[in-house]
Amino acid sequence: MKLKLNYSLLCLMIFTCMAVHGQKKYVMVIHGGAGTILKKNMTAEKEAAYIADLTKALQKGYEAIKAGKTSMDAVEAAIHVMEDSPLFNAGKGSVFTHDGKNEMDAAVMDGKTLSAGSVAGVTVIRNPISAARAVMEKSEHVMMVGAGAEAFAKQSKLEIVDPSYFYTKERWDGLQKAIREDSVKAVLDHGSKKTMKLGTINKDYKFGTVGAVALDKSGNLAAGTSTGGMTNKRYGRVGDAPIIGAGTYANNATAGISCTGWGEFYIRNVVAHDISAMMEYKKMSVADASKAALDKVGKMGGDGGLIAMDKQGHVAMPFNTEGMYRGTVTADGKIEVLIYK
Amino acid sequence: MKLKLNYSLLCLMIFTCMAVHGQKKYVMVIHGGAGTILKKNMTAEKEAAYIADLTKALQKGYEAIKAGKTSMDAVEAAIHVMEDSPLFNAGKGSVFTHDGKNEMDAAVMDGKTLSAGSVAGVTVIRNPISAARAVMEKSEHVMMVGAGAEAFAKQSKLEIVDPSYFYTKERWDGLQKAIREDSVKAVLDHGSKKTMKLGTINKDYKFGTVGAVALDKSGNLAAGTSTGGMTNKRYGRVGDAPIIGAGTYANNATAGISCTGWGEFYIRNVVAHDISAMMEYKKMSVADASKAALDKVGKMGGDGGLIAMDKQGHVAMPFNTEGMYRGTVTADGKIEVLIYK
Repeated sequence: MKLKLNYSLLCLMIFTCMAVHGQKKYVMVIHGGAGTILKKNMTAEKEAAYIADLTKALQKGYEAIKAGKTSMDAVEAAIHVMEDSPLFNAGKGSVFTHDGKNEMDAAVMDGKTLSAGSVAGVTVIRNPISAARAVMEKSEHVMMVGAGAEAFAKQSKLEIVDPSYFYTKERWDGLQKAIREDSVKAVLDHGSKKTMKLGTINKDYKFGTVGAVALDKSGNLAAGTSTGGMTNKRYGRVGDAPIIGAGTYANNATAGISCTGWGEFYIRNVVAHDISAMMEYKKMSVADASKAALDKVGKMGGDGGLIAMDKQGHVAMPFNTEGMYRGTVTADGKIEVLIYK
Repeated sequence: MKLKLNYSLLCLMIFTCMAVHGQKKYVMVIHGGAGTILKKNMTAEKEAAYIADLTKALQKGYEAIKAGKTSMDAVEAAIHVMEDSPLFNAGKGSVFTHDGKNEMDAAVMDGKTLSAGSVAGVTVIRNPISAARAVMEKSEHVMMVGAGAEAFAKQSKLEIVDPSYFYTKERWDGLQKAIREDSVKAVLDHGSKKTMKLGTINKDYKFGTVGAVALDKSGNLAAGTSTGGMTNKRYGRVGDAPIIGAGTYANNATAGISCTGWGEFYIRNVVAHDISAMMEYKKMSVADASKAALDKVGKMGGDGGLIAMDKQGHVAMPFNTEGMYRGTVTADGKIEVLIYK
């Protein structure tokens, strides 16, 4: 009798704790990029379109989890939706390089095996996230770049498209604006050492990436990130998304993480692995470690956001920009989508 | 009088401790690759040539430090020697890709500012380490790949060479051998899922990289790594060397690190940053953290080695292969070069 009472009391305490702290068990968290996203600049139609596609991505991921598929399947399914949507800077809708091309990067990591795969600078693969997964599963390598990565994707029977598939008018116009602003900047910088520095006028040109972290029924975490990179980028620049440890990381011992933001700061801070390391070595929660890692980026002058989920299904979605497209789905299928602060 | 005695006693204790533990203050540590390096397979001439070039690299680095230059200057100077030597798999003497090309990767990181630069898949830059430094110092980016990175190097006035500059007969013969062995492997694997997996017969094809970590008079650490990658590599494979956090990392708060070995395992374990994280978050010594990180690689089935140095000038040079070309120089100019276990 005493045992039963204690058990009931324990259940009540746990329930109270969960209610107080709002702890739910999540099975997936996604992002669609961080940046200067303000409600005042958003039309109702555009907002509805973003919410619809984020919701669809979460639904696809949830369906995979519910069907007993792996967290990697769920991550890939959710990211396919965002890559196929022209709204996000990944796959269709990727931003343009200085030369008017779409060069995409993506990475995945499996938290159970610490296997990982990534591609950078690919131009003809419809879904770069699937190419990253193929690198992980069908090769001994972790990272492949450029034409070599594309040859591997073809050999892996992934869908190859004409580069024109990735074109959207909005991104093309964005490139023209960036080129104009960079010309102004080049004149301003004339003669200074900074002449070669790029894209500093509008920092939002660096943003926009999609990512997902999922937790499957076997308790395994997976993370993935896919991006078109930075508008007007030159010189084969690669950001943090395809860098394991920087923009993408997953480890069942700690968390799955996907970052979005000013990539260079995320690489220099090895953000995704740093969150995992703080959880493992300092016993920090996923929320505290995520906040601490993002604070380091902020102190250095960088901005952006990230999503993270631990093995218990706790999520963190911090960002230090005006907004971040993001969403979660719980184990019982409840979807929540957020855009602004 | 009492004070003086205590002071003398303290000095004696410190001296004894240093003598017992062999603690010296180092200003530079370098490596020239790890692998199946056995004395029985080495000719006296070849051994002497390796020792001479490693010594020269340490001398160049030491001269820079002694002259009051930065640790980054020292790292670049030491790596230039190894890149220009045909003995090491970096710069001149790089291994060949499956297509008979030399595609090189390099990275540098500054421990004071956490600035970093890297290039991957470059084919015409005489000293890839200088291209990585140019990316760090002359662009807002951290990583550039392929033709874009080369265009940037040209713009930065770095020395451009014809791809034939990198040719050495020994590496070319190595490629022919690897192709033959891979053909055998392809037949053995025929019909299995592993048919697409690459280069598994001779794991030494994955090894050979050069790297340096230096500590300057201002107490700042810098690290750099340069490599020709993996013999017979295909599909634009990128290893750990140019990945900040994996093969290269430096942070004045912890250590400078450069890795060499089976790159994929170093990427998946985010080895260089993991050493830094264990030092920062678990208060481990550079030696213990380096050993722990390499043990993780080993447990996963990978092998190789690494060099690390903390801000106090303590060094670690662990490896789990038969040998690793390596060397150190102390603050008073004493050079030590080692090859075998």
